[in-house]
Amino acid sequence: MIIAVDGMGGDHAPKEIVKGCIQAINELDVEIALIGKKDLLEKELSKQKFNRSRLHIMNATEIILNEDKPVQAIRKKKDSSMVVGLNLLKEKKVDAFISAGNTGALLAGSLFILGRIKGIDRPAISAVFPTSKGMSLLVDAGANAECKPRNLLEFGLMGSVYSEKVLEKKNPSVGLVNIGAEQGKGTPLIKESFELFSKTDLNFYGNAEAREIPRGIVDVIVCDGFVGNVILKLTEGVAMTIMSMLKKQFTKNIINKLGAMLLMPSLKEFKKNLDYTEYGGAPLLGVKGAVIKAHGSSNAKAIKNAIKQAKVFAEKEVVQVINNEISRIGDEENA
Amino acid sequence: MIIAVDGMGGDHAPKEIVKGCIQAINELDVEIALIGKKDLLEKELSKQKFNRSRLHIMNATEIILNEDKPVQAIRKKKDSSMVVGLNLLKEKKVDAFISAGNTGALLAGSLFILGRIKGIDRPAISAVFPTSKGMSLLVDAGANAECKPRNLLEFGLMGSVYSEKVLEKKNPSVGLVNIGAEQGKGTPLIKESFELFSKTDLNFYGNAEAREIPRGIVDVIVCDGFVGNVILKLTEGVAMTIMSMLKKQFTKNIINKLGAMLLMPSLKEFKKNLDYTEYGGAPLLGVKGAVIKAHGSSNAKAIKNAIKQAKVFAEKEVVQVINNEISRIGDEENA
Repeated sequence: MIIAVDGMGGDHAPKEIVKGCIQAINELDVEIALIGKKDLLEKELSKQKFNRSRLHIMNATEIILNEDKPVQAIRKKKDSSMVVGLNLLKEKKVDAFISAGNTGALLAGSLFILGRIKGIDRPAISAVFPTSKGMSLLVDAGANAECKPRNLLEFGLMGSVYSEKVLEKKNPSVGLVNIGAEQGKGTPLIKESFELFSKTDLNFYGNAEAREIPRGIVDVIVCDGFVGNVILKLTEGVAMTIMSMLKKQFTKNIINKLGAMLLMPSLKEFKKNLDYTEYGGAPLLGVKGAVIKAHGSSNAKAIKNAIKQAKVFAEKEVVQVINNEISRIGDEENA
Repeated sequence: MIIAVDGMGGDHAPKEIVKGCIQAINELDVEIALIGKKDLLEKELSKQKFNRSRLHIMNATEIILNEDKPVQAIRKKKDSSMVVGLNLLKEKKVDAFISAGNTGALLAGSLFILGRIKGIDRPAISAVFPTSKGMSLLVDAGANAECKPRNLLEFGLMGSVYSEKVLEKKNPSVGLVNIGAEQGKGTPLIKESFELFSKTDLNFYGNAEAREIPRGIVDVIVCDGFVGNVILKLTEGVAMTIMSMLKKQFTKNIINKLGAMLLMPSLKEFKKNLDYTEYGGAPLLGVKGAVIKAHGSSNAKAIKNAIKQAKVFAEKEVVQVINNEISRIGDEENA
């Protein structure tokens, strides 16, 4: 199993990326293809001790920046770490590809270079989402701001496969984000999607109100990319705001400081539950290859966990299973 | 100043509603018109001591239930507490109306009985939203699941007036919820709305990402009712989930219990910040009258705070100001 990693993408590249790759080699049964400017990568690698036989550097002279326009960047920067990585995946020289770089470019590049799975109209970015009942998967987390009912159905099917294979949920439940629980509520998009879902053999829960999402009411949360992006970012924002409000209380006076000190081990455990670096990255679903978008601010631990996730993504042949299962919900032209 | 209160709406009616009205009479300079089944209301009132001269019971023999279909309920239940209250407001016998009952019916009734302010295409439900910088106002919080750019512009203008007059924000900033901060991001709805907002003299902030909302990045958060409902309910859900996860940590062992005990006064203060009952209710904006939707599970304190808010809503003549200001953004036909 060889996982390709974009050494140049993300706020802390290449340092944290390199450290994450080494952690993965030390802890997991993987080989890493680390892609980027060879001299920069070698310099970071020389600082660390590890089994070098399992890390291969692939030189790539260009870098796609966050401010680059996605489509243009993919077309023009042929020797960028991202394009080189996606080509390696296409040619099956590696089993999965991870990048913490430009999200739009990674999505565009995956579409152009790997292509869509037959029967999938719109590939999606999904996000692993911590809830009080464990991990849920949100699809689409931001790739498709506007959707048709058929798109939501595809998101549900792909999410269901990923949830079962990688997150190890048995017969994962799939819910549609809506502003009411009853059938017949919401926009035409949701009403029509509800009917499409009802005709499949997915474990369809029905409508899921946003209030219930953090409680883990469903395993797969389906919505358009606009709503999905709002859900993902708002959850992060609310959690961070509450944590910083709490922190203020904890340091307000000597009694509070003492109280917080006593609670510290539990608070750390609690914080870990909310920490995205624990959960790896956001899998791209619907393209012909196992691609994971790591958070732009990924540290070494986040990269290591993304590699761990990518390994299962590839091992469980999620792409192949989606390809097989999509026929269950009928052809896109007939939907 | 007479505030009409629906005595029969909400999960804890009439008991908590009556108690809230009495608290308001004891603490605020208001008269209350309490509407509902006279015998039930009298029974609750007889348990309390207060200045009865400032509370007037208006008998209404019917009740609109949560499961009633909104439009049908308003048309058929002419002697319901909700319809009677809205008629009192229309006839200017009261200055504002509050109900914790069926939201859809309150919205439909306000539209039919009070009517829209001239120039407002779509009245909205707004929600007062606690952030780390104080109160923001979210418009629309769920009345209009599908919107045109003109609707969002109206939401922004109405929200700006309410934020200035009732929440006492000076020159309130208005932001559009979007999945990216830069102009040109998002759906056609958002892009066109961005252009409309740019032409007004509102204090337009531009796009606001969901992550920034809990930090109070803007005073008025504008979005369609689907996204608004998701934002409102998800925030509630995330906050509740985090609180219950924390509570588990706080009671896990004797050391944690001790730590939590030391922190208790601060935790209570913190919880108060997140407590919707502190903030009154959700003002309906765009109808010809000051109407407030109180939370369905309102307790006495929530009702008292909604009455306090309704008083300012009426005193500051928010409806009249919206009516005057809407001309600033041009006629709806010319938009």
